[in-house]
Order: sequence, then C-alpha cells, then structure tokens
Amino acid sequence: MRLAELSERGGASTATIKYYLREGLLQPGRRISATQAEYGEDHLRRLRLVRALIQIGGVSVADAREVIAAAEDESLDHHLRLGAATRSLPCVERPDEDDPAVATARRSVDGLLEALGWAPDSGTDLLSPAHRRLIDSVTALVRLGYPCGTEQLLPYGRLAAQLAVTDLDLVEEQPTATEQIEAAVALTVLYEPVLLSLRRMAHAEESARRL
Amino acid sequence: MRLAELSERGGASTATIKYYLREGLLQPGRRISATQAEYGEDHLRRLRLVRALIQIGGVSVADAREVIAAAEDESLDHHLRLGAATRSLPCVERPDEDDPAVATARRSVDGLLEALGWAPDSGTDLLSPAHRRLIDSVTALVRLGYPCGTEQLLPYGRLAAQLAVTDLDLVEEQPTATEQIEAAVALTVLYEPVLLSLRRMAHAEESARRL
Repeated sequence: MRLAELSERGGASTATIKYYLREGLLQPGRRISATQAEYGEDHLRRLRLVRALIQIGGVSVADAREVIAAAEDESLDHHLRLGAATRSLPCVERPDEDDPAVATARRSVDGLLEALGWAPDSGTDLLSPAHRRLIDSVTALVRLGYPCGTEQLLPYGRLAAQLAVTDLDLVEEQPTATEQIEAAVALTVLYEPVLLSLRRMAHAEESARRL
Repeated sequence: MRLAELSERGGASTATIKYYLREGLLQPGRRISATQAEYGEDHLRRLRLVRALIQIGGVSVADAREVIAAAEDESLDHHLRLGAATRSLPCVERPDEDDPAVATARRSVDGLLEALGWAPDSGTDLLSPAHRRLIDSVTALVRLGYPCGTEQLLPYGRLAAQLAVTDLDLVEEQPTATEQIEAAVALTVLYEPVLLSLRRMAHAEESARRL
C-alpha cells in the first residue's frame, strides 16, 4: 500500500508517519520510485503499536524507540529480546539509602522479593526502572505513615505473579517470534490502564458492598 | 508548629506550602498574629498526602483539589465520601459508538461487568473516568488486533476484585473516618505504581522461568 493508505488505515496523518520514519520508530518502506515507497501489513501493525504506546501507554518517543530497538535486535536470542522489550529502558541508580524512609522501603522490598523467590538486579549498583519505581513508591507510603512492610506488599506481589502468567499466556498465542515480542510490549504497556481502571471500579464496588 | 517547621517536616518549601494554602489543597492554620499561623499534625499529614498524590501519583493540582474536597464534604455520609474520594473526579461522556472498534470494546466491557456482577453507571450517558478509560484502552487493543474479549478480560477483573479486598482491608485499619478517607485516596493512587512495578518485575521473572 502507499503512504496515503497506510495513513488512512493506521489512523495517523502522513506527517506523523514521516516523523516516525525519521525517528526510526517505523521501518522504511520498499522504495518504488524517487518519491514513493510501498508499505505492507507489517508497517500497519507497527504503526498502530507505536501510536498505542505513545497515546494510550504514555510512553515518550525516545522510550518507544528503545523498546522497539531492543525487540528488533536479532543478535539477541528470543528470551533476551523478549526480556529487553518487556523490561525495556536503561537501568537506573539505587536511591540514596542515607534517608531512613528509603532504607525502610528497601528492606520491605528486599523481603518481598525474597518471599516471592524473585532475584532481580542482585549484586549490582543499578536497578531496573520497575525496581527503582517500586522502592520510590514504597518510600512515599513510608513517609505518609501507611503500613507497607513485606507483609502488606506480599498480596500485591502474589497477584502480580498471577497476572504475569495470564499475560505471557496471551503472548505465547502469537504465531511468530516477532509478533510475540510486539505483543509482549503492547500487552505490558496497554494492559496497564486496563488493570488500573478495573482496580478503581473494583474499589467502588467493594466499598459499596461493605458500607 | 510554625510554617518553617511544617516545611522542614513535610519536605516542601514554604513557597509550595503557601501555594497549596491558596489553592485550597491544605486547610488554613490557626492564626496567632497578623503574619503568623500555627499548624498541627493534621496539616503535616495532609501536606505529605498532597505532595505524594502530585509527585508519585501524577495527579494534577486541580484533580488533587477535587479529590480532597470530595473527601472533606461532611454533608455526604461516610460511604459517599469514601466513594467520592476513591472514584474521584467528574464523569465523562461515553465514547462515540459509531466507530466499530469502540462498539466491540463496549461489548467486551459490558460482558465483563455482567460476569463480575458489577453494575456501574447503568442507565446514564455519563461514565466514571475509570469506566471510560477501560473502554478506551480496550479499544486500542481491538485496533491492534489483540484478543480482548470478555473471556480475556475476566482474569484481570477477578484479580482487581481481589486487590480491592486487600486495599479496603488496609483502609479499615485506620482509626477515624477522616483518616480512612485519606488512606483510601493515598492507597488508591500510591499503590498504582507499586502494582505496575511489581507486574513488570513479574513479567521478567515469568519470562525467564518459561524460556
């Protein structure tokens, strides 16, 4: 298909598509003349994925590019590509543990990971963005005085482990490795608002039930 | 305590505190002279909550004000105040169902709510923000061609219901009604990054386990 049809079917203006092409978010089309290129179903799927990551997932253009680059790097094996795409993004420094709230949060999170049998980032000064964000969020709860020891976090960790099984079952239904990786990225990011919306609706239901 | 001590203990500059006072995010102190006011532990807790909502929860100042106003409105009974605070924020219009992807998403979500026995927003043209966000997110998944019928959404809905029980158990541990409402707001918003971080870490663990 030509650029105009890709724009029509992908729901993005031709200016947006050209921007994604320049930024490396979309692979180039097959050139058929000095000014025209031909695009396929792969381009359409990638275009929809990029738009959904940015518009629904709230991912920045730079971050979307890194996630997609990791997923496409064929020098990595399938597991590493999937891990790179779902983990995504550069590691970050540990927070400053001179702060007592941070030290408390760190102990809660370490206890949680041990109880769950998870072993991320051990023996390094760098953390995955998710691990760092977890410590930061627990630190905020500690500062507000809410209970968030290992015991309070554990039900959330167990539910997250159940969710990951559901999520990866959906990923494995995809037919090819590339589509599995695209699905992993899409489902990781796009199911986040699904999950948060459902949790808020569940709060309203559960509080109505109790009170 | 005076403004300087509130600033020190709350980790916010005096300029920030004055801004929150002007915007109605923080209740006024007890005036002790023309230029000085006295603040208590209530102010400190509220200040920490507002900062956490805005900095960790990513809530706008305007939205934080509405959430707090709903929680403080003593003309509402306890259930309604808790509901107003956790639900928060004005209702929004239904999305345009002439779009076939929206219509598909709407059917999936309606089927999900029926299967879960939830009955929000029925018989009105307005939806809660969470309900609208759910339909929008599912619409994005439909457009990308990922399976997200009622059957795929149901495990997420069941887990959200389990989370709500855990969440409201924590809320009910708070001693007073006002503290329960503050806790509901704090836990709703502040456990969102906790949950999303744990889900991403669980993905990394589960994909390592499978591959």
